[in-house]
Amino acid sequence: MVNVNSLGRHVLAEFYGCTFETLNDTEIVKCYMIDAALFAGAEIRESVFHKFSPQGVSGVVVISESHLAIHTWPELGYAAVDVFTCGEKVNPWDACKYLKEKFQAEYITATEMRRGIMETGPRVAVNQ
Amino acid sequence: MVNVNSLGRHVLAEFYGCTFETLNDTEIVKCYMIDAALFAGAEIRESVFHKFSPQGVSGVVVISESHLAIHTWPELGYAAVDVFTCGEKVNPWDACKYLKEKFQAEYITATEMRRGIMETGPRVAVNQ
Repeated sequence: MVNVNSLGRHVLAEFYGCTFETLNDTEIVKCYMIDAALFAGAEIRESVFHKFSPQGVSGVVVISESHLAIHTWPELGYAAVDVFTCGEKVNPWDACKYLKEKFQAEYITATEMRRGIMETGPRVAVNQ
Repeated sequence: MVNVNSLGRHVLAEFYGCTFETLNDTEIVKCYMIDAALFAGAEIRESVFHKFSPQGVSGVVVISESHLAIHTWPELGYAAVDVFTCGEKVNPWDACKYLKEKFQAEYITATEMRRGIMETGPRVAVNQ
């Protein structure tokens, strides 16, 4: 018997219909991302945020369980959000839902991808 | 006529069969990731890398065109690699292939996701 498990869960979310002001404010974006990580129970290790000219913010929060990332297009009301977590402790959807509420996105689309597919459990030798 | 375009391309790649030593060396991992971004023609804005105990490295390179990220499990010979690029200038597969070669992965699996689906072009009114 071979069980197939994944090391991590990666939610890729598209946030549409956010306000220009929110998506263009580095401090607000950073605050929401860090709070989302903490809300989901993640342990923050590093974070880095960058403001683009004339608009837009990119940022990443590295957590013990992997990372959260965001890239914003304020002029389109759009943000690309990633929440990648490994282990059982943190549910990436908790952070995603938190962010949807904070950014007041009109609607989001989101997909969960499994990362690091590993075979576990004892293998049954075929020549036994 | 409504054309549907995406703002970005996001390659999620799983690298299997890498050596423990490479995946556990923060400087090597950082060097490969930064070089991969440059090789693909991206413009680097920020980078942050973190070493875990007893093993493992997480890191992100924020580029003008979005980001590259990596999380390594040296004990499993596995790394989760993301290359997310927006615009036409940078092809995320260039960075992905560069990293596959540098990490000497035995095999990889990879998927490209489209990020930020936008409608473009003039809409044709249905009641004309």
